[in-house]
Amino acid sequence: MADSRPVSLIVVGSIAIDTIETPSERREEILGGSATYGCAAASFFARPGLVGIVGDDFPPGHLANFRRLGVDLAGLQVVPGKTFRWTGVYEENMDNRRTLCTELNVFASFRPDLPEVYRDCEYVLLGNIAPVLQLHVLDQARQPRFVLADTMDLWINTARDELLRVIGRVDLITMNESEARRLTGERVLLRAARALLGLGPRYVVIKKGEHGSILFSRDGVFLMPAFPLEEVKDPTGAGDCFAGGLVGALARTGEVSEPAIRSAMVYGSVAAAFGVEAFSLDRLLSISAEEIEERAALFRLMLKVE
Amino acid sequence: MADSRPVSLIVVGSIAIDTIETPSERREEILGGSATYGCAAASFFARPGLVGIVGDDFPPGHLANFRRLGVDLAGLQVVPGKTFRWTGVYEENMDNRRTLCTELNVFASFRPDLPEVYRDCEYVLLGNIAPVLQLHVLDQARQPRFVLADTMDLWINTARDELLRVIGRVDLITMNESEARRLTGERVLLRAARALLGLGPRYVVIKKGEHGSILFSRDGVFLMPAFPLEEVKDPTGAGDCFAGGLVGALARTGEVSEPAIRSAMVYGSVAAAFGVEAFSLDRLLSISAEEIEERAALFRLMLKVE
Repeated sequence: MADSRPVSLIVVGSIAIDTIETPSERREEILGGSATYGCAAASFFARPGLVGIVGDDFPPGHLANFRRLGVDLAGLQVVPGKTFRWTGVYEENMDNRRTLCTELNVFASFRPDLPEVYRDCEYVLLGNIAPVLQLHVLDQARQPRFVLADTMDLWINTARDELLRVIGRVDLITMNESEARRLTGERVLLRAARALLGLGPRYVVIKKGEHGSILFSRDGVFLMPAFPLEEVKDPTGAGDCFAGGLVGALARTGEVSEPAIRSAMVYGSVAAAFGVEAFSLDRLLSISAEEIEERAALFRLMLKVE
Repeated sequence: MADSRPVSLIVVGSIAIDTIETPSERREEILGGSATYGCAAASFFARPGLVGIVGDDFPPGHLANFRRLGVDLAGLQVVPGKTFRWTGVYEENMDNRRTLCTELNVFASFRPDLPEVYRDCEYVLLGNIAPVLQLHVLDQARQPRFVLADTMDLWINTARDELLRVIGRVDLITMNESEARRLTGERVLLRAARALLGLGPRYVVIKKGEHGSILFSRDGVFLMPAFPLEEVKDPTGAGDCFAGGLVGALARTGEVSEPAIRSAMVYGSVAAAFGVEAFSLDRLLSISAEEIEERAALFRLMLKVE
C-alpha cells in the first residue's frame, strides 16, 4: 500500500549489505547502513526520503522492506555495480566491534544529489558518511529547520577540516564519547561537549551506547539513560536508529526546542532499543507505531522523578 | 555547636584510615570507611547515629569532623589498638582500583551492638561489612521502617549464605552490576535484578558508577543517571555516600514508597557527586545543606522529560 504522507524529512547516508557475527550468531548479506537504519527508525514518526546509492545487485526484497516502512525512494540511486558491503564481528560483551572487511563498491562514487522536491524538506538527517558529502547536502537544502549530523572517528582522523565545517552548519551534532574527546582534545566529557558547542551547533548529543546519551545545549544538560533490554542481538545501527527516531519525532511535532528534543530523544532511544533486538531491520519491520508509543510510555515512567 | 535533632537513622559499617593514590595525587592517613561516608552524606538530611569501631589512635580531628556534621557518636566504640587501615590505588581512568593493603586491626573484633536508644530507629543503613554483622544489627533493631544494605564481592565469595539471609530481611539491597551477576548467576542485568527481588527485598538498586544506578521494584524500574562532573578527585566512598544520602533523604520525608525512593536517589547521587570531588570528607565538610538542594534542583532539570 502506498504511503500517502508527504516526505517531511530526508535521510542521507550509507546503504549496505552487511555480514555480522556476534558471539551467538552469524548473519550474511543482510540489509544495513546508516541511512537504512535512520530511515527505518524515522518512518514510525514521519515519512522519510532516503538519499543513498546501491548497485544493481541490490535485492528487490530489501527495496520492498523500505516501501513497507513507507520510505520514499525518489532519492535512491541504483547504478551498475555492487552495493557497499561491510563485515563486522562483535566480541563477547557486544561493546567492542571489529571491522573485518569494507568494500565500498558503488558507494565510492556516491554523490548525494537531492531530488528537487527534497530541497525544501525541513528536517534533515545527515547519517554517518564523509563530511564532504554531508556538506554537499547542506549546499542543496534550501531552508532546513533542523539538521542533525552523525559522524565517526574515521572522519575525525581523515577529514577533520570538512567535519568542523559540517559541525558549524548543523543544529545538532552527535558522536560518541571517545570521538568527542578526540576531536576536541578535551579529556573531560563536559569540557569536550562545551568545545563542540563552541564550534557552532545549538545542540550536541554524546552517545554512550548501553549507558544512554547526553544532550548539551547552551541552556543546559539532559541525561538520557538507555532503555534497558533483556537481550541485545545485534548493536549495529543503534546510533542511526537513535538519530532517525529523534529527527522523525521532531518532524512529527513540528517544534524545535530543547524540551521537544528531549522528548524526541525518548523516541530515538526506543527506536534504537527495538533496532538492536534483532539483526538488520527484522524487529523494526515487525512492530507497529502503537508498540513504539507503548514502549515510549513505559520508558517515560522509568525516567520519572516526582 | 551541638546538633539538637533526634537521631533518626543509624549507619553501621567500617571506619577506616585510608591511604589513597590516584593518577594525580597520593593522600595518606585520611578518614574513610563505609560508615564514615554513609554518615556524612546522610547528615545533610537527618541526624545519623554512627555505629562503628576505632582504635585509641583515632585522631581527635576526625571525631571533630563527625561532630561538625551533626553525627551522633553514642554508638562509636573506641577500644585499645589501631584503627582499621586501607590502602588503595586507582588506575588511569579511575574505574579500576586495586587494594594494596588491608589491616583490620580493631575492626577484626567489631561487634555492632546498638545503644538502647538506637534500637527504635526507623531508618537503618547497613554499610558494606560482613553479612554476619549486618544480621546482628537486624536482630537488635526493633521495628525499622526501612533498612538498606550494601555489600560487595568479598561477601558473595566468602559469606554467601549469610548474605542471602541479609538480603531476605532488608527493604533495599544495593550492589554493583558484576556483583549482582555473580550472586545470581544471571548474565543479563534485568534478570539478575529480578532474581534479587525474588530473594525478598522490595527494592534492588544496581550501582553502575559513573553511569548511575537502576532501581528495581515489583512495580517497575527507575533509571538514574549519575550527576555529571568536571572532575572526579577520588571515587572512594561514592557508593556509601549514595546509600547514606538515599536513606537520609527518606528519613527526612518520613515516607517509604517508590516515588519517595526515586526522589531520595536524586539526593544520594548528589551527595555522591560532592563526595568524589575531593579526598575523604573534604568536600562534604565544606558544603551547606543549601548547596545540596541547589545541586539537586539542577540535577532534576537534567532528568526532566516534558
